[in-house]
Amino acid sequence: MITLGTGPQRAGFTDVRAANLALVLGFVRAHAPCSRADIAAATGLTKATVSSLIADLIERRLVRETGLAEHRIGRPATMLMLDGEPYVALGMEINAAHLAAVAIDVAGERALSWRRSFAGVGCSPERAVTAMAGLAQRAVARLTSQGRQVLGLTVGVPGLVDDAGTVLLAPNLGWRDVPLRAALARALQEPAFPVVVDNDANLAVVAEHRHGRYAGTANLAYLGGEAGISAGVVVDDRPLRGGRGLTGEIGHLQIHAEGPPCRCGRSGCLEALAGVDVLVREALAGAGTGHSHTDLASGVGEVIRRARAGERTALDAIAAAGRHLGHGASVIVNLFDPQVVVFGGYYAPFARWLLPPVEAELAARAVAPQGDCRIVASTLGRAAAATGGAARVLDTVDAGQLPARITPGSLP
Amino acid sequence: MITLGTGPQRAGFTDVRAANLALVLGFVRAHAPCSRADIAAATGLTKATVSSLIADLIERRLVRETGLAEHRIGRPATMLMLDGEPYVALGMEINAAHLAAVAIDVAGERALSWRRSFAGVGCSPERAVTAMAGLAQRAVARLTSQGRQVLGLTVGVPGLVDDAGTVLLAPNLGWRDVPLRAALARALQEPAFPVVVDNDANLAVVAEHRHGRYAGTANLAYLGGEAGISAGVVVDDRPLRGGRGLTGEIGHLQIHAEGPPCRCGRSGCLEALAGVDVLVREALAGAGTGHSHTDLASGVGEVIRRARAGERTALDAIAAAGRHLGHGASVIVNLFDPQVVVFGGYYAPFARWLLPPVEAELAARAVAPQGDCRIVASTLGRAAAATGGAARVLDTVDAGQLPARITPGSLP
Repeated sequence: MITLGTGPQRAGFTDVRAANLALVLGFVRAHAPCSRADIAAATGLTKATVSSLIADLIERRLVRETGLAEHRIGRPATMLMLDGEPYVALGMEINAAHLAAVAIDVAGERALSWRRSFAGVGCSPERAVTAMAGLAQRAVARLTSQGRQVLGLTVGVPGLVDDAGTVLLAPNLGWRDVPLRAALARALQEPAFPVVVDNDANLAVVAEHRHGRYAGTANLAYLGGEAGISAGVVVDDRPLRGGRGLTGEIGHLQIHAEGPPCRCGRSGCLEALAGVDVLVREALAGAGTGHSHTDLASGVGEVIRRARAGERTALDAIAAAGRHLGHGASVIVNLFDPQVVVFGGYYAPFARWLLPPVEAELAARAVAPQGDCRIVASTLGRAAAATGGAARVLDTVDAGQLPARITPGSLP
Repeated sequence: MITLGTGPQRAGFTDVRAANLALVLGFVRAHAPCSRADIAAATGLTKATVSSLIADLIERRLVRETGLAEHRIGRPATMLMLDGEPYVALGMEINAAHLAAVAIDVAGERALSWRRSFAGVGCSPERAVTAMAGLAQRAVARLTSQGRQVLGLTVGVPGLVDDAGTVLLAPNLGWRDVPLRAALARALQEPAFPVVVDNDANLAVVAEHRHGRYAGTANLAYLGGEAGISAGVVVDDRPLRGGRGLTGEIGHLQIHAEGPPCRCGRSGCLEALAGVDVLVREALAGAGTGHSHTDLASGVGEVIRRARAGERTALDAIAAAGRHLGHGASVIVNLFDPQVVVFGGYYAPFARWLLPPVEAELAARAVAPQGDCRIVASTLGRAAAATGGAARVLDTVDAGQLPARITPGSLP
């Protein structure tokens, strides 16, 4: 007999308290009002363990006692409800032409949504950090003045971001090896809340999974058009991270070996054929209008006006981009088998013309029968990555990583 | 304020006992010999809950009391160890030219490994079911005669298999819409153990993750060459399933729009350029040797002999396949960011010539710096899918889905 080993190591037992906190918090979210005894009965945890976990949650104002008591035999039980109103999660995004900040509280209410123009293309990392830290500080000040505590900040960047928050490569900003997380934390004077940096599409798909029209879809893909193209994927309700956090790089999938040169140095990449800037340029070809990257939004607006007016050049350009994006989507569908693919960023406003050719190309290239995979446009608007940044912070709370205890008197 | 909702629903609480069983089983696996009190202290479960879970595990002979007692203050504790010796998991695979069966016990020992020639290409599903059921029955009889209980059977098929175990499409067997799981369960007279059917690469990657040289790698991809090409992916220690179980379809990735026709009806697919049959045909071109699909093994052997002898045509054909496979691997790496990509099936014996061009092409096409992703050959031999089928059954036990209680006296 050959010993094959006993398989991979399971998760450590130091995570047990966090798992139990998440279990209890999830139960209260689903079943409130409920008593400690209800929780113990449903989870198999001791009443003492449940009481200790609830004490933690109450101390952190994530759960509160309602004062209501259920009338049962024996001592009436104090009922519990979700609290969390004092907490907000902050998300930000930087892109070729804007900065955005979004804050969401634990109950899912949007507490803040700001957006400002910002010339990201060719911007030095130093200047970007100063601008982002300034926006973050104003957002934190606003939220704090409302008596709220910021649980964390997650920033979305259009590029490859490793698990340490270093931007390895962001071609559309012109960055390489920028330790953004560390620089931002320093500019914010090492705040009490965690600062995280991630790829913008990774965050956008978290936003879609938590707040989008297809929220809760276990296997969900997002294909976003900003200055570049990138994808985010949720697998079995969890965002795909990969070994180093460098997943979803669909923009440089080669569509045609003899295709046009790409800014990455290769040729025939999806981005070189169906990037939003390429779509705008082709759609406005011969129209005598020059549009640069930093003016992508106005270019998109102009193309949409022309498409509405039935202008052939514009419609043809959108259809061509749709076919290439359908090719790209077919690779995602063949590999991931998602239930829904959401087209976001600047692709969303083109949906009515863009999605039919996407679907046709996908049907031709998908190996499996395609009846069940929906191709839809995002409804989250233009700050999906910032919204996803906030959602990611809330996910860590739901996973049992609780905020620091609130100092008595620091909140109303 | 805009209500964004409170996010996706969490898992139900009916899974709590299974989760707790998995927790306790995992603790015993990692820390045996240990006492019930140790388990309670480490997990936060009540001693009563732990005792009830352990009673279940002992009754099912997954855990046993050692009789040893630890000398501590108070009553000496009975120590517990993993048992599981009476249980085996059975995996099978069908392919163009063979059937295989592998059984592994709960401790990870291989209990049986059979392989027989079988003309899978063009074989009717009925005949295949008869052959597979025959092999399974002989394996079950052998294992039962050794006093073992079969926990489950998982069968790997080279094709698209949905979650119900229906083979939607298996081009290399010539099958479409074959309800294999149901037919096999019927042929086995609805056995007491569960019967599952899955894609062979999905199972092969489970085998790599549990028993391969890079076992335990959290993000692992497998690229297998049999009659076709397919991929399996493990994401965060869990096999990628997708919305319907139809993931990893890399064989029909279009490498060149003007490439050779593929048996799928498209052209320029990875399989049409770098399938094992294509590699063999190109490598033996002009050698006057005809090899058909059902003779793939002998063709591979011949190509390897010629490559060892330094024959240029053979080496060129392997290098060309390697470049195309590197292109395919780059798509997997760009999307999934795995730590390891394992080349298996008939690709493994070509590794020494095949992997260098794979690595070169990957380096040219991967968007992220590639220092951390290893390209390796499988060491599991020619029944990776069958081994993975058995491993998949063991994974369900480790997840807390216990076997039925053993009838007293039915085992030695």
